[in-house]
Amino acid sequence: MSRVIKVGGAQLGPIQRAESKESAVARMVALMEQAHREGCTFVVFPELALTTFFPRYYVEDPTEFAKFYEREMPNPVTRPLFEKSAEYGIGFYLGFAELAEEDGKTRHFNSSVLVDQSGRVVGKYRKVHLPGHGEFDPERSFQHLEKYYFEPGDYGFPVWRSMDGIFGMCLCNDRRWPETYRVMALQGVEFIALGYNTPSVNSQRPEERGDERIFHSDLTVQAGAYQNATFVAAIAKAGNEDGNPLIGGSIIVHPSGRVLARAETEEDELITAVCDLDDTIFYKQTIFDFARHRRPEHYTRIVEQTGVILPD
Amino acid sequence: MSRVIKVGGAQLGPIQRAESKESAVARMVALMEQAHREGCTFVVFPELALTTFFPRYYVEDPTEFAKFYEREMPNPVTRPLFEKSAEYGIGFYLGFAELAEEDGKTRHFNSSVLVDQSGRVVGKYRKVHLPGHGEFDPERSFQHLEKYYFEPGDYGFPVWRSMDGIFGMCLCNDRRWPETYRVMALQGVEFIALGYNTPSVNSQRPEERGDERIFHSDLTVQAGAYQNATFVAAIAKAGNEDGNPLIGGSIIVHPSGRVLARAETEEDELITAVCDLDDTIFYKQTIFDFARHRRPEHYTRIVEQTGVILPD
Repeated sequence: MSRVIKVGGAQLGPIQRAESKESAVARMVALMEQAHREGCTFVVFPELALTTFFPRYYVEDPTEFAKFYEREMPNPVTRPLFEKSAEYGIGFYLGFAELAEEDGKTRHFNSSVLVDQSGRVVGKYRKVHLPGHGEFDPERSFQHLEKYYFEPGDYGFPVWRSMDGIFGMCLCNDRRWPETYRVMALQGVEFIALGYNTPSVNSQRPEERGDERIFHSDLTVQAGAYQNATFVAAIAKAGNEDGNPLIGGSIIVHPSGRVLARAETEEDELITAVCDLDDTIFYKQTIFDFARHRRPEHYTRIVEQTGVILPD
Repeated sequence: MSRVIKVGGAQLGPIQRAESKESAVARMVALMEQAHREGCTFVVFPELALTTFFPRYYVEDPTEFAKFYEREMPNPVTRPLFEKSAEYGIGFYLGFAELAEEDGKTRHFNSSVLVDQSGRVVGKYRKVHLPGHGEFDPERSFQHLEKYYFEPGDYGFPVWRSMDGIFGMCLCNDRRWPETYRVMALQGVEFIALGYNTPSVNSQRPEERGDERIFHSDLTVQAGAYQNATFVAAIAKAGNEDGNPLIGGSIIVHPSGRVLARAETEEDELITAVCDLDDTIFYKQTIFDFARHRRPEHYTRIVEQTGVILPD
């Protein structure tokens, strides 16, 4: 059985604050049509793909931002994507802001869904590693209020059998944390879909610019792929959103760690790569055969402590 | 207080099987003298720096290899290194094969020592992640019998306060495992010394050659440095040992993940980099502030299972 999938990485250019979700979805549908013409069977869209990256704005009453969140997925606004998915037989990954009513509480997550080639949601992920801060920070050149707008995800890092492979998801800052990939690799993950929005400037160190930010993005994604013998598609929302630049640099990475495809622009752009999921096997059975080589008895600090405990 | 150290990475060219340990030590003393002339205060030598990489040879009676192991450190053969260390005020890291009599048993480890600027051993490390195999494998183009010649290390990944910083150690294949760096980073590590011997050819896949092997070495070391906000000096024994080529590619890496210095040859070669241990602080206090951002409740698989557990 061939397990070759042609993957489309559907980078989005900027979504201005005034742009409607319907407009963003129309742009994504156009990218999915292009993916279909190019023979793709799976497409990865960015994190928070329906709106501007609103955590950069501080608003005292978060309910003012209710319009940024989705109460269900699919919903009337995003349904065209799911219909195209079923029509073309293209699975996809989509990042969005989730508002959930659970246990009698209103909860907010930075989430994504995995959709199979019949347009059916097979899994949902809620971002675990929220970067930034939870309160307005006057010291920063701009805000990064993910800890204000979202709770940390409560699902961990599940994987799903779908489309003849084992798929996992994560979001943006998750890619910098090796635990993200490892927990999925311990479940045999073969393909990780990952959307991101990364400012081109470090809000706490203005001299750190776009090329260094892309270097860090590449480094963590490529290492995550290699060390865990998995494909990773890391897809950006890029470009200048109302004066706030985001890096592009979307990439699709082989389990060897090599970049198979890379976005050249900061606009809506489809990159593609042929991914044979069987290419993960050699690494999983040799140098990264976890059962033979890992030594969890020496890893206990990774779960037994959160922060640093300095030596005496 | 300045915490700037000038680090020397003392790559070694090949050590043929017939070469004596005294000769290898003399080569290392020459590199330490060069490091002294260039103003270094810390030098990193490779893994198994006193001998050829003997795990490539299968011998049924391991006692025949007793001469490759050290029963104490320092010992008469290595004493010149420790004397130079004290004379010059240069700390160092040295990899060697260790034979220990413990609990009434003879034990063998792939080990390293950390030596401070007075020539005193402040710590010992025993390699945790032994690659390769434990029995002769006729399918391989050459052997990689580390699991035959050594037990896995039993110390975990401790760190040491020394030379005004927090130092950690690991060895070769440890660098490919993100847990290695993470356990040390959870103890505040600022500088990791790492020696390696990496064959230039994958014994199970001949088409994987030196440039890909160096790419993987770089990728894992640079990601380990960045994701853990630490300096890493990864120093090779390189070149052709009795017909068996080893990659070079020794590097010293900044906590930004950037390579500060890189070896150009596969011979005895000193590379140097000025390392300000305070450069770790920005990353440790912002994007990699573990106490604020890590979510160990979702990492439990990392310690609760060794191998892969596939989903239903």
